[in-house]
Amino acid sequence: MQGRGFAPNGLVTLTTDFGSSDGYVGAMKGVLLSVSTELRLHDLAHGLPPQDIEHAAGVLRAACPWFPPGTVHLAVIDPGVGTARAPVVARAGGQVFVGPDNGLFGPVLAELGGATIVRRVDPQGRLGPWLRGDEINTFHGRDIFAPAAGLLAAGRIAVPEVGPPHTLLTWERVPPRRMDDGGLTGRVTGTDRFGNAVTDMHRAMLDGVPRAAMEVSLADGRRLPVLRTYGEVPAGEALALFGSEGFVEIAVRGGSARNRLGLRRGAVVRLVIRS
Amino acid sequence: MQGRGFAPNGLVTLTTDFGSSDGYVGAMKGVLLSVSTELRLHDLAHGLPPQDIEHAAGVLRAACPWFPPGTVHLAVIDPGVGTARAPVVARAGGQVFVGPDNGLFGPVLAELGGATIVRRVDPQGRLGPWLRGDEINTFHGRDIFAPAAGLLAAGRIAVPEVGPPHTLLTWERVPPRRMDDGGLTGRVTGTDRFGNAVTDMHRAMLDGVPRAAMEVSLADGRRLPVLRTYGEVPAGEALALFGSEGFVEIAVRGGSARNRLGLRRGAVVRLVIRS
Amino acid sequence: MQGRGFAPNGLVTLTTDFGSSDGYVGAMKGVLLSVSTELRLHDLAHGLPPQDIEHAAGVLRAACPWFPPGTVHLAVIDPGVGTARAPVVARAGGQVFVGPDNGLFGPVLAELGGATIVRRVDPQGRLGPWLRGDEINTFHGRDIFAPAAGLLAAGRIAVPEVGPPHTLLTWERVPPRRMDDGGLTGRVTGTDRFGNAVTDMHRAMLDGVPRAAMEVSLADGRRLPVLRTYGEVPAGEALALFGSEGFVEIAVRGGSARNRLGLRRGAVVRLVIRS
Repeated sequence: MQGRGFAPNGLVTLTTDFGSSDGYVGAMKGVLLSVSTELRLHDLAHGLPPQDIEHAAGVLRAACPWFPPGTVHLAVIDPGVGTARAPVVARAGGQVFVGPDNGLFGPVLAELGGATIVRRVDPQGRLGPWLRGDEINTFHGRDIFAPAAGLLAAGRIAVPEVGPPHTLLTWERVPPRRMDDGGLTGRVTGTDRFGNAVTDMHRAMLDGVPRAAMEVSLADGRRLPVLRTYGEVPAGEALALFGSEGFVEIAVRGGSARNRLGLRRGAVVRLVIRS
Repeated sequence: MQGRGFAPNGLVTLTTDFGSSDGYVGAMKGVLLSVSTELRLHDLAHGLPPQDIEHAAGVLRAACPWFPPGTVHLAVIDPGVGTARAPVVARAGGQVFVGPDNGLFGPVLAELGGATIVRRVDPQGRLGPWLRGDEINTFHGRDIFAPAAGLLAAGRIAVPEVGPPHTLLTWERVPPRRMDDGGLTGRVTGTDRFGNAVTDMHRAMLDGVPRAAMEVSLADGRRLPVLRTYGEVPAGEALALFGSEGFVEIAVRGGSARNRLGLRRGAVVRLVIRS
Repeated sequence: MQGRGFAPNGLVTLTTDFGSSDGYVGAMKGVLLSVSTELRLHDLAHGLPPQDIEHAAGVLRAACPWFPPGTVHLAVIDPGVGTARAPVVARAGGQVFVGPDNGLFGPVLAELGGATIVRRVDPQGRLGPWLRGDEINTFHGRDIFAPAAGLLAAGRIAVPEVGPPHTLLTWERVPPRRMDDGGLTGRVTGTDRFGNAVTDMHRAMLDGVPRAAMEVSLADGRRLPVLRTYGEVPAGEALALFGSEGFVEIAVRGGSARNRLGLRRGAVVRLVIRS
């Protein structure tokens, strides 16, 4: 009796910018396991850049779709804690997402499609029934989101009970622009630990174009081939390829595109079709 | 038959300063799961500042009380490994703590109250029965503490078997000083990943004083209001509030109080009552 | 019916150089749990130095042997992803190892002994049956190794099905050299988070020599005693000892041997026998 489309499997993932030197993540785990010692918790990542919603949204989009239906994803990157921003529970692809309604879940819900957004709209705009005490202003991860996620994952409350549907704060983003040659002008959305620069230009936007006809052009005039794999260039050389999520990615084999090519989030990158 | 007050629930938490680039945490997990593959291990934090007992004690106090009774908490921040410092097993609030007796558990046991401290007092002062080999001097986390925690969590040994009660090494700390105005002079006990500075002045020490009558005064003469939440000041401004554990905390909205106000552990901070 | 020598216990460990700020580890966990929500995943370490196979091999050797038989170890430190390097499945000590065949598993398999190496030798040299799609070139951890590890851990495929035995790429390393005095000339293989420098000279190579007769000699002429534990020297002083894996280790009590003595990987260290 879990209601429309969500049958919990006992899995809860955690994603935060809390790092690994404080007690915040541990406190959230304690709250979750106090709901039920049977929950199976899985860390996605806790070292996210502090309060960087855009980066966190990309992490959730990259990881969550791979989990099985019935999973609860708890994510707390929450620069607006204590402001008017609302908590949210969203359901998509048979999975549930719990966290602040600040754009964090926009990309992953778009990826999964068909999301239903629900939240508790008590007078304070909080996930009411799981609130402890009357003055919780600094750690909603422990005091609001973790209890909600735990109760959902344990099947003690059903998603529809959370409240009436509402509209998720969407993530504002300018999509890549189509060029006359059929190519795209996009931008770097982020870099990973290896210094690879990921763009917003997806393979699906280039349907029917053979990879050999593509070339990536950087702001400094540099041109890079679009290859299948890092191993196709010698060590130290730059290339472009379609990354593990299907977006155009710029890499330096055995090095860092971020450092070597100066590619930061927001940098303009063009994908050119050679005629 | 788990003896006085501890019925294991199969959960073991791990807290260390071992970081995430070596094999030490993994070896401890292997030892725990070799006791029983059914144990459910949960990382609290492994990136604690190396050998910083005071910081680690604060992490345990922030996280462990949220776990359900029956949990075993294994913590290894152990600058004195190989010296005369003893291993310890402590029980409080239906939970059990295993690690070096160096002050690490003082604050969390005080928070939970009613702790019973037991340890094995064999001639070497070691947790004897779980010792492998005869010359283990550098990695007690793997060779002494993990086997003890695993056997306790698996219910194969009961806490009372560990040995006779003794007195835990307590954490030496000067409490905040009461001022003539009813306020407090305390100090910063640490900063978190976001640069928030936590003090030792707890809300319970200010019982009956309305928050609006409080003000925090820093050594440089700066005065901060005590508010309910970060969102009550504009971005970039400093404030004080009661943090997620009830202690006075100094923050800069969207910034770092550590960097912007120069607040480090030990910095003197006054909480003033306005008349 | 798990075939020769491997009966899965449901445990899967994960070791990567993916860090904790991206979605890569989470995606792998999602794939594993999509094979079976019952798998119990355990992080060994994800902050390994990027693409440093030698370091990663030492981490696996330090941690994996402590796990119970039936465990699947999934490790992805894979600078050669997308090149001709093959995926590999190896079995030793009742445990199974899955990852790229780049030397990563050499030391741990040598430690466990009696390894059987098997891999799928389809025309592309890939672990064929678990491959998704037809153009997976950048994230074999998610697309090849995690499905393989999950299916092995869930008992859905047996090790022998993976393919015929072959020879693992071994880790090329010059062993320590025996000196006229019975001592050894070795080198530093790495340093840990505390700055301790671990060498390749193992206690077993010095069988029968009393520790009191040993001395460690550094390239700068400095001589260090070989003691039992860090606590035998005053704070700030250097010493040598046999570390937690039995190798000669150089440490500074309460400090960093890496920084204080300039010891880096590859530095030559001599163990001298005093007559």
